[in-house]
Amino acid sequence: MEDLTLSDPVLKAQFSQRVLIKSILSRPDGGAGLAGQTVKIGGWVKTGRKANKDEFAFLEVNDGSCPANLQVIIYATISPLDQLVSTGASVHVEGKLYVPPEGKNKQKIELKVDKVIHVGPVDSAKYPIPKTKLTLEFLRDHVHLRARTNTIASIARIRDELAYATHTFFRKHGFRYVHTPIISTSDCEGAGEMFQVTTLFSDTEKLEKELITHPPPSQADLEAASVLVKDKGGIVAQLKSAKASKSEISAAVSELTKAKESFSKLEERSKLKPGFPKKDGKVDYSQDFFARQAFLTVSGQLQVETYACALSSVYTFGPTFRAEHSHTTRHLAEFWMVEPEIAFADLEDDMKCAEAYVKFMCQWLLDNCLDDMKFMVEKYDKGAIDRLKMVASTGFVRLSYTEAITILEEVAKEKVFENKVEWGVDLASEHERYLTEVKFKSPVIVYNYPKGIKAFYMKVNTDNKTVAAMDVLVPKVGELIGGSQREERYEVIKERILEMGLPLDPYQWYLDLRRFGTVKHSGFGLGFERMILFATGLENIRDVIPFPRYPGRADL
Amino acid sequence: MEDLTLSDPVLKAQFSQRVLIKSILSRPDGGAGLAGQTVKIGGWVKTGRKANKDEFAFLEVNDGSCPANLQVIIYATISPLDQLVSTGASVHVEGKLYVPPEGKNKQKIELKVDKVIHVGPVDSAKYPIPKTKLTLEFLRDHVHLRARTNTIASIARIRDELAYATHTFFRKHGFRYVHTPIISTSDCEGAGEMFQVTTLFSDTEKLEKELITHPPPSQADLEAASVLVKDKGGIVAQLKSAKASKSEISAAVSELTKAKESFSKLEERSKLKPGFPKKDGKVDYSQDFFARQAFLTVSGQLQVETYACALSSVYTFGPTFRAEHSHTTRHLAEFWMVEPEIAFADLEDDMKCAEAYVKFMCQWLLDNCLDDMKFMVEKYDKGAIDRLKMVASTGFVRLSYTEAITILEEVAKEKVFENKVEWGVDLASEHERYLTEVKFKSPVIVYNYPKGIKAFYMKVNTDNKTVAAMDVLVPKVGELIGGSQREERYEVIKERILEMGLPLDPYQWYLDLRRFGTVKHSGFGLGFERMILFATGLENIRDVIPFPRYPGRADL
Repeated sequence: MEDLTLSDPVLKAQFSQRVLIKSILSRPDGGAGLAGQTVKIGGWVKTGRKANKDEFAFLEVNDGSCPANLQVIIYATISPLDQLVSTGASVHVEGKLYVPPEGKNKQKIELKVDKVIHVGPVDSAKYPIPKTKLTLEFLRDHVHLRARTNTIASIARIRDELAYATHTFFRKHGFRYVHTPIISTSDCEGAGEMFQVTTLFSDTEKLEKELITHPPPSQADLEAASVLVKDKGGIVAQLKSAKASKSEISAAVSELTKAKESFSKLEERSKLKPGFPKKDGKVDYSQDFFARQAFLTVSGQLQVETYACALSSVYTFGPTFRAEHSHTTRHLAEFWMVEPEIAFADLEDDMKCAEAYVKFMCQWLLDNCLDDMKFMVEKYDKGAIDRLKMVASTGFVRLSYTEAITILEEVAKEKVFENKVEWGVDLASEHERYLTEVKFKSPVIVYNYPKGIKAFYMKVNTDNKTVAAMDVLVPKVGELIGGSQREERYEVIKERILEMGLPLDPYQWYLDLRRFGTVKHSGFGLGFERMILFATGLENIRDVIPFPRYPGRADL
Repeated sequence: MEDLTLSDPVLKAQFSQRVLIKSILSRPDGGAGLAGQTVKIGGWVKTGRKANKDEFAFLEVNDGSCPANLQVIIYATISPLDQLVSTGASVHVEGKLYVPPEGKNKQKIELKVDKVIHVGPVDSAKYPIPKTKLTLEFLRDHVHLRARTNTIASIARIRDELAYATHTFFRKHGFRYVHTPIISTSDCEGAGEMFQVTTLFSDTEKLEKELITHPPPSQADLEAASVLVKDKGGIVAQLKSAKASKSEISAAVSELTKAKESFSKLEERSKLKPGFPKKDGKVDYSQDFFARQAFLTVSGQLQVETYACALSSVYTFGPTFRAEHSHTTRHLAEFWMVEPEIAFADLEDDMKCAEAYVKFMCQWLLDNCLDDMKFMVEKYDKGAIDRLKMVASTGFVRLSYTEAITILEEVAKEKVFENKVEWGVDLASEHERYLTEVKFKSPVIVYNYPKGIKAFYMKVNTDNKTVAAMDVLVPKVGELIGGSQREERYEVIKERILEMGLPLDPYQWYLDLRRFGTVKHSGFGLGFERMILFATGLENIRDVIPFPRYPGRADL
């Protein structure tokens, strides 16, 4: 129980034996109004130093609730100071808040410790992240401790805020959150490299172990069992022809049955072989957990469409996977996507929704997370806050793919692009960034792409050359969102699937949405980590997800 | 653009060309105040019937935004009626809201159609879910269409509300949402059956195809290449000893280099073999995508602890996996878990948090989702709303495992349990349900379990016989939550890992949390689908997740 009688719910109900440092320092008065209060706090020492001939120590304590540290003063009479001043030590203490002498400190409030509840010491010589100036690359080798650094903690809070902003935005607009499956037997794009999900390795390993402890029957065992069946059969025949008693015959029949059972069991076991189950020379997936090949989803779109065609406005927000051997700063094997899907909506509605959603997230960070954004500006990207303000307040430029190509062709006369600019070829990242960063200095939505470079499910426009697709491009990261109106016409989408050389059968369920009560509908996907890169200005996507997965690496 | 000038944001900003039916019908006046307004709506026909000698038709239209249908009247002069009256047809229409003649209808408002924007017809003979009275079991074979039924739509909305309630509750109390990884190389319990994640099947398949189109070099090819190297080497030696010109020698050396390169390439390819990469007779996982064995997570707890030991109050909410061949109504291969983790918190704090969270969710459904709950009461479980009210308002009974055993032993003298009641053995579901449903008629928290039946990471109590674990038991489902205070003492937890026969090495990162700045911390896991079963009163977990995965089944 705290001595606290404050009305602030954050200060009171933490389900733990301390108040969040944020609830002290983030008050309008910087916490000064709390002077005289007795509180418990807990956290980790950022820096500590002994003072006044080791009479007391100053500790900068951070508990991850906000970027700021609480300055804590503790006397040697209360606790030995040595273990307290090491970076990384944890302290759980009770004390009194007081206003420090003016000019001494920029903080408005400090804590003087009366009682030490617990100390978690650190051997400084062994602590893997001893100083605060470590490279992000170094920290990737210590994902289990890196959240204790200012940078990764700030990113974690920004990520949390963006997730909550996402749920808030969609709820506000009447969308329902749908958990699309992670394990999937559909391939959304018909192209992606997918991770396979299986129990065949462990099943096979178990079987092989079992075959060693209980070897399968030899040919001789089988023959012996077969002979026994014949013998027992012979006895029954003999007894019958000798008109033996009913009980004699039934005893012999029962022995015959046993022999037959034992033979068929042996025969069954004799088929067991080490290695994967095979059929016609191929792995027999009917023996796998789901009785078929199963994969990690590359997108929840197709599945969430089934809910859009029932609940009207829905979204999914979850992990998605690509097994690409990509070592760039922009790709992960496991990443999170936000995918709304709206019934009775066309591409125009889709673009409106995308723009409103991105603006909402930018404004949310300005309103709810400014201290972390200030940290990012200070340490990583001077323009980060300005960028959020610009996007939150500027109408997104819209231009068709054809217009974009015309502009870029004009530019290409004077500026050298690495990639070709040509109608029918997808825009490269350099083109996208040129449009948003140089040409328009604003978010840009490019729409109506050539159908040859887009997925089968996108609505074919009346020109029969383009599809109702759109990409949202933003400064710093380029493509942030990709979306489209979906093709709702049964005959057209069926034709498109075949045109792309895809088999119809796996898409029958998807076609059912067009066969039965089909509706115009649209949606998009936002790469959640890209949004964080955009917001923070960080360069490497591996730093904006708590536990990055990429080729050769899946720590923890 | 709607003609609507209403101030209700839900009515205005849907990013689609219709208003949600909920925003009409859920008004305190049942929508009557909107009479005279022109609106567009879209949805699917639940039932339709022609009337007055086919002069017009009544359609009950549902758009999934709420359980109620909007009654729509449309005249044959506006649109042919036949395709409109089929169950499952989609309609997107514009019309005027009006108050129907009294007594005729229980709805306060209806829509008279002026314009049909789009109709998505249905061939009634082929529609897989033609009537509303289909069994839940039947619907599991049509997961792509089942959200169009009243029951599955209601469950989807309740699920959405519980997800939002979860984020709201934790945010309110200062928790940060952390995305723990789906692909994991740690096994939380050290016991679970796990799904393996791999690209070895597709890699092997690719290699085998490649070896067919480009067969590996024969022994003769290799020998020829080797001979060529010798020959070219000989030429170089000759030229050198003949003191040939520099240019002649360098040309010969360059040919030798080429021959060597070509030989080593052939040699490399000659090692390629069909089948999985092997090393010492075992599958060589160093060749797999993550250069090691990787699995689908069974819990985010261990990973989220790394964030709790940095950000203090955190939670994860995501999919988890068990590859158990379990065919019960209570197990899924893919399910969602909510796992909070709190630093500077003991078991008492943990129990407080669990109780507050469950109560919050119950009250949330009563406040935000009463129409769907009423539907559940009507169709599935008369007691569902009363149960929510009871849990939201009743203090949870707390008793130690030892007390629970004493009570159950007493009961067992008169009542027959299928499972043994004995100190040291885990409570079976029948015992749990007896305690919460019969004995206390209230949620019950059982705490301090024997350490022999619990995981290594749970804090050992001073009695050295029990650990600081707790389970929350609720009527209808039994165990809803399992949690514990975590062992924060390095030496003790290390001992426990060894005691359980687990290897230390994979847990070194986890031990680091105890080596460096260790803190008391606690957390729990709530099975999200169990919470939905508890709320709705449904019996089968496969009906409360959009796309159920279980042995032999992973549709879509």
